[in-house]
This record gives sequence, C-alpha cells and structure tokens, in this order.
Amino acid sequence: MNTPEFFEDFEIGSSRLTPARTITEADIVFHAGHSGDFMPHHTNAEFCKTQPFEKIIAHGTMTFAIAIGLSVSSQVQSPHGMSYGYNKIRYPRPVFAGDTIKVKITVMSKEDHPSQKGHGMVVEAKEVTNQHDEVVMYAEHVIIVEKRSGE
Amino acid sequence: MNTPEFFEDFEIGSSRLTPARTITEADIVFHAGHSGDFMPHHTNAEFCKTQPFEKIIAHGTMTFAIAIGLSVSSQVQSPHGMSYGYNKIRYPRPVFAGDTIKVKITVMSKEDHPSQKGHGMVVEAKEVTNQHDEVVMYAEHVIIVEKRSGE
Amino acid sequence: MNTPEFFEDFEIGSSRLTPARTITEADIVFHAGHSGDFMPHHTNAEFCKTQPFEKIIAHGTMTFAIAIGLSVSSQVQSPHGMSYGYNKIRYPRPVFAGDTIKVKITVMSKEDHPSQKGHGMVVEAKEVTNQHDEVVMYAEHVIIVEKRSGE
Amino acid sequence: MNTPEFFEDFEIGSSRLTPARTITEADIVFHAGHSGDFMPHHTNAEFCKTQPFEKIIAHGTMTFAIAIGLSVSSQVQSPHGMSYGYNKIRYPRPVFAGDTIKVKITVMSKEDHPSQKGHGMVVEAKEVTNQHDEVVMYAEHVIIVEKRSGE
Amino acid sequence: MNTPEFFEDFEIGSSRLTPARTITEADIVFHAGHSGDFMPHHTNAEFCKTQPFEKIIAHGTMTFAIAIGLSVSSQVQSPHGMSYGYNKIRYPRPVFAGDTIKVKITVMSKEDHPSQKGHGMVVEAKEVTNQHDEVVMYAEHVIIVEKRSGE
Amino acid sequence: MNTPEFFEDFEIGSSRLTPARTITEADIVFHAGHSGDFMPHHTNAEFCKTQPFEKIIAHGTMTFAIAIGLSVSSQVQSPHGMSYGYNKIRYPRPVFAGDTIKVKITVMSKEDHPSQKGHGMVVEAKEVTNQHDEVVMYAEHVIIVEKRSGE
Repeated sequence: MNTPEFFEDFEIGSSRLTPARTITEADIVFHAGHSGDFMPHHTNAEFCKTQPFEKIIAHGTMTFAIAIGLSVSSQVQSPHGMSYGYNKIRYPRPVFAGDTIKVKITVMSKEDHPSQKGHGMVVEAKEVTNQHDEVVMYAEHVIIVEKRSGE
Repeated sequence: MNTPEFFEDFEIGSSRLTPARTITEADIVFHAGHSGDFMPHHTNAEFCKTQPFEKIIAHGTMTFAIAIGLSVSSQVQSPHGMSYGYNKIRYPRPVFAGDTIKVKITVMSKEDHPSQKGHGMVVEAKEVTNQHDEVVMYAEHVIIVEKRSGE
Repeated sequence: MNTPEFFEDFEIGSSRLTPARTITEADIVFHAGHSGDFMPHHTNAEFCKTQPFEKIIAHGTMTFAIAIGLSVSSQVQSPHGMSYGYNKIRYPRPVFAGDTIKVKITVMSKEDHPSQKGHGMVVEAKEVTNQHDEVVMYAEHVIIVEKRSGE
Repeated sequence: MNTPEFFEDFEIGSSRLTPARTITEADIVFHAGHSGDFMPHHTNAEFCKTQPFEKIIAHGTMTFAIAIGLSVSSQVQSPHGMSYGYNKIRYPRPVFAGDTIKVKITVMSKEDHPSQKGHGMVVEAKEVTNQHDEVVMYAEHVIIVEKRSGE
Repeated sequence: MNTPEFFEDFEIGSSRLTPARTITEADIVFHAGHSGDFMPHHTNAEFCKTQPFEKIIAHGTMTFAIAIGLSVSSQVQSPHGMSYGYNKIRYPRPVFAGDTIKVKITVMSKEDHPSQKGHGMVVEAKEVTNQHDEVVMYAEHVIIVEKRSGE
Repeated sequence: MNTPEFFEDFEIGSSRLTPARTITEADIVFHAGHSGDFMPHHTNAEFCKTQPFEKIIAHGTMTFAIAIGLSVSSQVQSPHGMSYGYNKIRYPRPVFAGDTIKVKITVMSKEDHPSQKGHGMVVEAKEVTNQHDEVVMYAEHVIIVEKRSGE
C-alpha cells in the first residue's frame, strides 16, 4: 500500500509487509538488562533445558518493540496520525534466538473519532511471523488520524 | 498482596506497587537503536521543539517493556502462571527523560479458562504513573494460572 | 530524487536529504566502548575543559557510522548497487552532544566501471550538517551499480 | 614506572597514574541493566533526592570495573603475570555522574609464592580519585608473577 | 533466610541462594566496552586458542558485578544496611560464555562497629558457582547495619 | 615504531601492528542499532543465506570504527597531532562474526602543510587483516602534526 496520509487514505483490507530482522542472543541479553526483566525463561539456559521449549525464549515485550520498530522504519509515517494504543496483544508461539521475524500490517477497521472532530480512528492488525511463516505475535494497533476534509 | 501462587490465590481488587525507576536520555537512545524505531519524536530534539510536548518523548514500547520489567522483578513470580497477552494498552500522557515511573498492579477479574481444564484466566490492570502521580500508561495483562484444585 | 535503481537512473547533481538525529552523551559513551576509542577528547570532560572546544566531542567514526545509517534507512536501497568504499572523509567542525545532524546526498559523478562489464561507478557526496547548517563531515561514497542495459 | 615484566621488576613503592575517564549517566544506566542491580540509589532519582547524597550514585561494582579497565588499558600488561584476586575494596566516597576518575597504582608488597615454585605474589594498591583529588575507591590487587630466574 | 533488617537479625551461618543467570558472549562483549578492558583473554579468540583455557573467558570484574546484581535483586534489601566494601575476592576457576552462575550468600561474622555507636559490621560470604557446582568466585562482603536497639 | 611525537619523528615506511580483536554477533547487533543501519546484509540471516557470502556480514562503518579504536588504544597518541580525515577507504573482503581483526599502520607519506606554518601532513596507511591474513579494509588516514622546529 502507498503511505496513507489522511484518514480517507486508509483502505480496509489493504496491507503491507515490513523487512525482516533476525533476533539474536545479544538482543535478548540487551533487552533483559534494559527492561530489568531477568525472568529465567529469558536469562537462565539451565532452567530452560527443563522446560517444554528447551531453550531461552525472547521477551514478549521485545518482540513487540522490534515489531513496532520494523513497522515505523519501513514506511514514511504520516505526520497526520498518532498512536493511541493497542487493543490486543497475543503471543501464540515463542521467539528464539536465530529466528527471523517480519510484520504484516493490515488495515482492519476505521471509524469517526467519538469526540475529536475532524479525526478518525484506524485499527491496524500487526501480525508478526517467523521464518517458518508461523505467527509469533499478533497486535491490534489503534491510531488517530486527521481527516483531509477536516470534518 | 502476597505472591498469589494458584488461581484461587488471586483476589479481585487486591493490588501492589512496584519500585520506581527513572527514565533517562540514555534509555531512550538505547531503545531507539534496539527497537529500530528512530521516529523524530524519540530521536530529533530540533523537531520536538516544534511540537506541543517541546522535548523528546520516550517510546511507548519502552515504557511498556520497563513497566513489565518492574512488575516481574519486584515479586517472586508464580511458576504456575504464564503470560497470555494484553487486552488493552493506552498512553494518556508522554514520558520524558527524567521522569520516574512505577507500576500499580491490581487484580481486575478472574474466570475459568474457556477450554483448558484446571486453569483460569486472570486479568491484572497495570497502571504506570510518573512522579506527579499522573498516569502515563495503562495496560490489562491476561495471565493463565493453574488451579490448586486441578479442576 | 526517486530511488535510483540502475546505473542509468543516477542523475548527476540530483540530491536528497535524510531525516535528522540528535547526537547524545549516551551515543558518545556507547561508541567509545564499542570502538574501544577512549581518547580523552571523547571520554574525559576535565581534559576537554582545557581544550579549544571546551567540551567532549563526538568520535569522527561515530559521525560517519550514523551518517551512513541515516542514508541507508531513509530510502529503499537498490538491490543492484553495492558499496565499494569512500574517497575522502573530512571533518571541518566538531560534533557535540546535543547537536542534531542530517545528511545531504548528491550524485557527484558516474562512469563506466573500468573492468566489470555491465556495471558503473557512482560517487555520491555525503554532506553532514548540524542544526546551525554548518558542515561537520563530508564524504565521497563510491558505489558500484549494475546497468539496466547490461552493457 | 616502566612496564614490570617479571617478579624481579616490581619495585615496592613505585607507582603510575592512568588516564582519567568521566563517568556519565549513560554509564550508570548501562551498568544497572548489565549487572541487574537496580537498587534505588542507582536508578531512582526521586528516592535519591531524599538521601544525604541527593542524587543518583554510581554502582561500586562499576567503579571497580572501570578502574580495572583504566589500569589494564593504559600499560602493556606483562604476559608473565595473572590476576589472583583482591584483598580489600573500600568506597570512602560516592561517585556521581559527571565525575572524572583516574587510578594511581602503587606496588605495595611482594613475596615468594607460598607453593608455586618460580613465582611470586605482588600486591598493587589501586587508589581511584575524582576530579577533586578525593579518594572514591581503594583496592588491593594481588597478582601472581613469574620470576625471571625461574626459582 | 528471611530478609535480615537490623544487625540483630543477621544469624551467623544462615544462608540463601540467588536465582541463576547464564553468561553470554554478548555480556563479555558489552563488559569489555563498558569497562574498557580489552585484554586478549576477553576479546581475542585466536589468542585464547593458544592458552590453557582455549576460549574467551569472562572478566573477573563482570562476574563480580553480576554476582552483586543477583544478590541485591533477589531479596528486598534492608534500608538499615549499607555496603562498606569487600575483604577478599578470589577467582578459583574461569567463567566462559554459556556458563550459568548463581550466588550462595552466608552470614560469616558480625561484630560491633568499632566507632559508630548503634551500628554493627556484618560479613557475608558470597560464593559464586557455575552449572557444574564449581566455585568460580568467592568474595567477602562487609556491610554496616543499624542496630534495632540503637546501642 | 616508537611513538612519533612531532612531524620530524614520522619515518616513511615505518610501521606498527595493533592487538587483535574478535568481531562477534553482538558487535554487529549493537552497531546496527547504534548506527541505525539495519540493511538486510547485517540483520537478516535468511536474506544472507541467499547471497554469495551466505551469512551476516559486519558493517563497513563498524570495521572502520573498531580499526581506529585498535589504532588509538594501542599506542600513546601524540598531543601534537590531530586527525584531519581519510583519503580512501576500501573493503576488499567482508568481515563475519567470529573473525579476528588487527591493523597494520604504516607511514606512507609526509609533507609540509600547505598553509599552516609549523605543521605538516602525514598519511598513514591502515591495513586491516583477518585471522587468515586477508585484507578486509584499507584506509589512508591524514593527520596534521606540529613540527618540533616550529617552522
């Protein structure tokens, strides 16, 4: 899809795919320190050997941050939109060091802003997949976008 | 609240407060690089001078990651629970370098898991406030917890 | 300029401007550790007070790395080109923490590759300026680009 | 002092001074994450305002790591010596972001290794001072060094 | 042991164990840059192949910093105690990337503070072991703790 | 070569070799984030499998920064010289995670400064090789150095 600029430009069902990025052990180590989340699932390889997934898994908060990073860096962002929040985040499968993830962004819905005249709310589905095309994260991103019409 | 271990231990309405952490310029710089999100709101001080907030603001994805980090590091986590996802994330106010944030975690609701016998779903509200007691982030965290009863 | 894809698409004199990024103290600290260059100009504030510039200056190698980062992240890169090297790098003025830099990229010259049939060499001038429009770095980047014609 | 190579080359009382390095907020943030030590003295500016020192202080473990870094990077290290441990570490004053520290290394004592023939033990005093010539850390470093004589 | 709060609460011989953390190549790379200690034992894999340990070893200063991090993050720290220094640090075995370390903390001794009325000095032994239960670091940590009695 | 202090001390043809450093996956991950250069050659392992080099390659700007770091940290730098820029940078072969690089620095040429009395210009060739003695980077560094004679 071309860069949607105003509310009117977002077409329900249109989608785009970001570039992919490989998640590394270094990313997980860095994120543990940066977030302060040293849960054993992310930092203790011996513990992980006793778990169903058998190895260290990436933080869900890191997959989220990198997914948003891939989204905003791969397309010029409209100066007429701003992030409002997320409606749902799910993690159907773990991400491991060595996995390569990318994001498919699809316009899910759009409606007038309930109170802010001249603005609308757009919900984009962000589906993060790994190199086996398995979904590892799913999020619904709500953005507020100005209308070209101003009404 | 004491550490809730099994589903039965979560009491609706009970809450706890994490320690606080000061967000610094270094955190924002690190997070831009780590996430790949170099939007001008986070990395361009000249651009920010022209915006309503006048200075660089922290990434929402970083506030989220640090809030979760504060939550899991300040209480022994039950080995009988696992994170399922989030139902809602909102950012009512920006976070700036120099702000000190903490998280109030409240048990919002609990119900039987729709399909997984012996498990329940708990929703915790995570309210992040700054040093002026203003809410800067709000999230609803869904966790799946084993029942002590096994039923 | 639109993204030039093949050698034929590069027009001498055409130029583009990247987004800007603010250089921070954290960047300088990080780069000192990453590069291993702890020269007192970059890491010793007391020494710097005795120097003409009076405060810590950014590493030239960091300005270079960030300038290239700004260049490649702000435009889809042609899969038909590859970086060959640089002909000249100059640092007319220092960069300080707090400065906001951006890069102007101009196609300087183009010629057939001396030995590789179907390819040409393009030289791009990369001029890095700060928030006062002063040039802080100048580089000539040589890239090898496939010809659409194949000849 | 010249680089002492063998046990015989260490002269009691001889000393050398390392270059200085400015400790920054970024260093403290980085070290909190890397070590996992998020004690409020290092990461919570609001808490620190209520303390005698009034601002965030550097981790003692970081001052130690950087002091050793300054020591080993400022002199060719003898391939005939190896670090054995430390006998005493004291922190008479806090280190704050903005302080510039350096290390004075003095040969305190030397004696035959109690059991390892052909080796001796050397103790070096490492005194870390800030820009006001106040001692902020003191350590006694024990190293095992080969004898030139082999006896 | 429960969190000892006042001097009277420290019981000689009582001990606790921290969670474990896996040391990674990324940690060693970070620490080299952060501390400025690029000794070949930590940063030159080719050199290390010629040494008895055959691979890159972690910095002793990093093992120390992470051991203290594990100690303070795994138990609420008493606001009535403060770190005074260390009496001894030894490194009986190297730590390699991939090793998982944890700390056993034992109250070794306690005595009245020689000059500060209402305070005592407690020495805690900190024994760091790897996944093979081999001791890789040993330290004696001296802390000054208020007496409940005030005398 | 001994540390050349003044212009007169630089001898054409004299050379020195720096210590070596192993480039790791963590270095490449850090550098991508720090520079903002997430080109797939550096961050997408799946893409790299389809390329002639088959695995992720280090950024040229990182090899450059680390080469300069190795150069300045391995010899006392003359306070009478300052970096002016570079005349040529070439990358004949890629650098991969696991490669160990070092720099050979050779005085190539020296001449009076065209306009600055009492100063000269020295060009040093910096040749970076990997553990197979293959050249991976070549640069010509131009430095301005005071003359001892002042003329």
